[in-house]
Amino acid sequence: MGMQLEDLATPCLILDRQILDRNLKRMSERIRRLGPALRPHLKTAKSAEVARMATAGESGGITVSTLAEAEYFASHGFRDILVAASQPPQKLDRAAALIDRGVKVSLVTDDAEAAKAIAAHRGQFHVLIELDSGDDRAGIAADGESLLQIAQALGNKLAGVMTHAGHSYGCRDVQCIKRIAEVERATVVTAADRLRKEGLECRVVSVGSTPTMTHADNLDGVTEARPGVYMFQDLFQAEIGSCSRDDIAVTVLASVIGRNESENRFLLDAGALALSKDRSTQPTQHDCGYGFVTDVDRKAAFGNCIIERAYQEHGVAVTDSPLDFNALRVGTKVRVAPNHSCITAAAHDRYYVIDGGREVIAEWDRINGW
Amino acid sequence: MGMQLEDLATPCLILDRQILDRNLKRMSERIRRLGPALRPHLKTAKSAEVARMATAGESGGITVSTLAEAEYFASHGFRDILVAASQPPQKLDRAAALIDRGVKVSLVTDDAEAAKAIAAHRGQFHVLIELDSGDDRAGIAADGESLLQIAQALGNKLAGVMTHAGHSYGCRDVQCIKRIAEVERATVVTAADRLRKEGLECRVVSVGSTPTMTHADNLDGVTEARPGVYMFQDLFQAEIGSCSRDDIAVTVLASVIGRNESENRFLLDAGALALSKDRSTQPTQHDCGYGFVTDVDRKAAFGNCIIERAYQEHGVAVTDSPLDFNALRVGTKVRVAPNHSCITAAAHDRYYVIDGGREVIAEWDRINGW
Repeated sequence: MGMQLEDLATPCLILDRQILDRNLKRMSERIRRLGPALRPHLKTAKSAEVARMATAGESGGITVSTLAEAEYFASHGFRDILVAASQPPQKLDRAAALIDRGVKVSLVTDDAEAAKAIAAHRGQFHVLIELDSGDDRAGIAADGESLLQIAQALGNKLAGVMTHAGHSYGCRDVQCIKRIAEVERATVVTAADRLRKEGLECRVVSVGSTPTMTHADNLDGVTEARPGVYMFQDLFQAEIGSCSRDDIAVTVLASVIGRNESENRFLLDAGALALSKDRSTQPTQHDCGYGFVTDVDRKAAFGNCIIERAYQEHGVAVTDSPLDFNALRVGTKVRVAPNHSCITAAAHDRYYVIDGGREVIAEWDRINGW
Repeated sequence: MGMQLEDLATPCLILDRQILDRNLKRMSERIRRLGPALRPHLKTAKSAEVARMATAGESGGITVSTLAEAEYFASHGFRDILVAASQPPQKLDRAAALIDRGVKVSLVTDDAEAAKAIAAHRGQFHVLIELDSGDDRAGIAADGESLLQIAQALGNKLAGVMTHAGHSYGCRDVQCIKRIAEVERATVVTAADRLRKEGLECRVVSVGSTPTMTHADNLDGVTEARPGVYMFQDLFQAEIGSCSRDDIAVTVLASVIGRNESENRFLLDAGALALSKDRSTQPTQHDCGYGFVTDVDRKAAFGNCIIERAYQEHGVAVTDSPLDFNALRVGTKVRVAPNHSCITAAAHDRYYVIDGGREVIAEWDRINGW
C-alpha cells in the first residue's frame, strides 16, 4: 500500500485527479461543440501535469498570467503561450527570450504607448488588443477610437482581440451568465469586424471565463476560449452555478490542533496562509467563511462546518451540528474546500494527487511567483 | 552603482533595513525597560537575516509559527525555538529531530490528550500551556480546572504558560490596548501562581502581541515577550496605534500595466497573489483596500491612492487626486504598503533589501510553507 492521506504532513494541497479529469472533459466537449479552440488558462493549476491533461486532444495552446508561468510551461514543452495580462515594457526582453527558445508568444495590450514599445521591440510577438466587455478592469471599448490607434501602433504584430468577462462572477444565476457570455462574444466580434473592415489583421478572437464558457449558447465568430478555474472549481463557482460542490478538485488537508467543547468548535492548522484570505463566498447564498470543512473522505461529517476565522496558521471551524468530541481528537485530519481555488492553490508549492480514494498516487509541482 | 529598484522585475517585496532597524531597536529598548526577555516572533519575517538583527543583544530565543520555520532557523544556528502554535501529535517526531540537532524546542498545548501524547513522546520538549486571555482562538482559562489537568499530564515537560492577546487587534486606541495588555499579563501571572502553588514547574511566563508589547506599562511576573509584526509593521498596525505609516518596512514594488484616464485610475501588476486578499484595514478609520500606493520613493505622489480591487495578477489603483497621465506611463514603478505584512510577505520568496534609498544592497531569503 502506497502513501495515504493520513501520512501527509498538514497543511497541504490535495488534488483529486478523478474530479479534475471529469471537469476537463466536460469543458473540452462543450467548447468543441461550440466551435472555438480551447486555450486553457493555467493560472489556477500552474502545473505542467495538469496542463498536459487539459490540452490532450486540443490544439496545444495555453494561457498564462505571468512570465514565470510562461517560462515554466515553455521548459515543459509548451510552444504556444498567451500571456493574458499586460506586461510592463521592461519585461519584453524576458518574453522575447521565450521566442528565441522556439515558443510562439502572444501578449495583450490596451495602451497605445505600450503597443508602440511592443512594435519597436525585436521580439516577434503576436499581440491581442484587450477589450473591456463590462468587467471594468482592463481593456478598451470595442467601438472606441483607441482600438484602431492601438491596432495601427502594433503594425504587423497585431494578431487579434481578446476580452475576459470577469463580471460574470457577479451573477447569481445561469440566465445572467448567459447574457454576459453573449456580451463577451459580441464585444470581440464587433472589434474584430472593425479591424477587418480597415484591412487590419484579426486572426484571433479570444474570450473566456469559466462561468461564461460553462453557459454560453453561441460562440460564433470566436476563435478561442480561455477558461481556467473550471479545472479545479471552488465554492464560489458552485455558488454562481458553474459547478456543484462535488466538482471541486482541490482541497486543503488539515489537522485538528485544538478543541473547544463548550463552544462546539475546533481549531485547524490551516489558516490564512494555507487557505488564503479570499472571502469570495461572502456575498453569495452560502457564506463559507474561509472554506468548507469535511472529513478526510469529503463527507460532510461535521454538518455545515466552515472556517469562521482565519489567523496566520490557525483556522477556527464552527458548525451548526453538535460535534462528537470523542471522535474528533487533536490530530484528526479533515479537508477544507476553498472559496477560490486560484488563490488557495498559490499558497502551496505542490499537489498531492489522489484518484478518488485516500491513496496518494503522485506529487505534482506548481510554479508560483513571478 | 549597484542594482536599483528600477532594475527589479515586478511584483517583488522590498525591505527597508533602515526602518527595520529602527523598529527593532524601539521594541528591544522597550521590553528591556519592562523587564522580560525578548523572544521575537519570526512568523512575519521568516528570514534568518532579520532574525539575527532582531536577536542581537538579546537572549537569542526566537518564536516561530510552523515546523518549517523551526527547521530553517535551526539550520541557521538558532538553538532556542518556541513553536507558538499547537501541533498535531503526528508532528512530534519532526519536532524531536530538532532536539537531536541540539536545539531547545518549546511547544504549546491547550489539550489534555495532546499533552499526554507530548509527555509520552521520547522528545525532551519544553511545554507551555496556552491560555486564553480574551482572544477566543486557542487556550484555556487561567482559573479553570483543565490548567492543572494539563499541567499534570505534561509531567516534567511542563515549562510554563503563555498567551497571545490577539484581541488587541480589535482596539482603535492606545487606552484599549493598555487595558488588554494588563489582562494579558494578569492571565499568565494568575495561571503561573496557580501552578506554583501546586508545586508545579512554571519557569516561563510568556506573552506577546505587537500592540500590547508596544503599549504595556507593566510586565511584572512575565519572563518573555513575543511580538512579531513590529519588525515590519503595516497599515493595520498604523491604524490601531502601534506605529505610524513611516514605520512600515516592507512594500511591494509594482509596475503600472494599464491606465484609465476617464476613470482617473491605473492598473498594477500586483494583485491578490502579490498583495494578498487581506482586508484588515476595512473596519478601521482609513480603509486602504488592498494596499496604499506611493511612488517608488514612497512619496504619496498620487494622493490617497489605494488598491480598490485585487484580481489574481491585477490591482486597480484609485485615488481622490487627479492623476498626471503624462508622467504615469505603462512601466512606471510604484510601491504598495500592505494591510498586513505577515500575509503579504508570505506571497514572496525573498526580500530585496534597501537602506532608505533606491539601491538594492542585498537579497534575503524567506522560509514559506510548512
